[in-house]
Amino acid sequence: MDVSYINPFVSATIECFKKMIFVDVTPKNPTLKNQPFPTYDISGVIGLSGEAQGSISLSFPQDVAIRVISSMLSCKIDENAPEFVDGIGEIANIVAGNAKRGLSKFNLSISLPNVILGRNHVIGSQTGVPTIIVPFTSSMGFFSMEVALKTK
Amino acid sequence: MDVSYINPFVSATIECFKKMIFVDVTPKNPTLKNQPFPTYDISGVIGLSGEAQGSISLSFPQDVAIRVISSMLSCKIDENAPEFVDGIGEIANIVAGNAKRGLSKFNLSISLPNVILGRNHVIGSQTGVPTIIVPFTSSMGFFSMEVALKTK
Repeated sequence: MDVSYINPFVSATIECFKKMIFVDVTPKNPTLKNQPFPTYDISGVIGLSGEAQGSISLSFPQDVAIRVISSMLSCKIDENAPEFVDGIGEIANIVAGNAKRGLSKFNLSISLPNVILGRNHVIGSQTGVPTIIVPFTSSMGFFSMEVALKTK
Repeated sequence: MDVSYINPFVSATIECFKKMIFVDVTPKNPTLKNQPFPTYDISGVIGLSGEAQGSISLSFPQDVAIRVISSMLSCKIDENAPEFVDGIGEIANIVAGNAKRGLSKFNLSISLPNVILGRNHVIGSQTGVPTIIVPFTSSMGFFSMEVALKTK
């Protein structure tokens, strides 16, 4: 299984957090997600289509998400602010947008972000499509990225 | 606001349920979703991209989802079967695939489905993108469809 496509998503996440959220984030070892299990409290999900099909999601514990979006907007926001949901979607959008440049061979286009809220919600992908999870750590806390991509 | 793009999704849902799940479903009045609020227990979400960007989700209470997938597969399944999550994704995939033919002017392509599990999870879309909710009723129970589409 070629999972080298994960690298542009990892690089895009590091770059997005550095430039937009003013924090260094560190990727840990990627793992293969074998079955659905709970993510964190809030996830930004974007669909990918083109010569490959898939999705990317970034999932945050609520307290981490609040710190991240507050830093991005340079003002303290809480989980009820519309900017909170929009901000999580925007991060997913920026990461997917940057990553697709590193995956030009797939000629990917990206959907609008969906933001999923709910403690311990589970994002399940389809059987037969490998989903890679990359945990990240940072001074704002931990979060995870999941990428599923079905190449034709 | 032109929301005529909702019609191909409604027709595709009726057709998918008739042919694949062997049940007639009836759409109720569409409403505009003004802010995130809880959907049901399990949702199939697909991203749309091309000349328009967006997403479609179909959200089911768990008991309805179990009846729907059991009928689709012609065998009784429970919520722990891998076919359960796959089946909900497949329905979203079929509906999005059929609907895009009625929206050929947008030259849409569709991502892989994500399936979200979690009681009262909330799917939030981006500010400024109208999301239309269409409730459906059927002899298997009720469910809802949400479509967000940002035309360029």
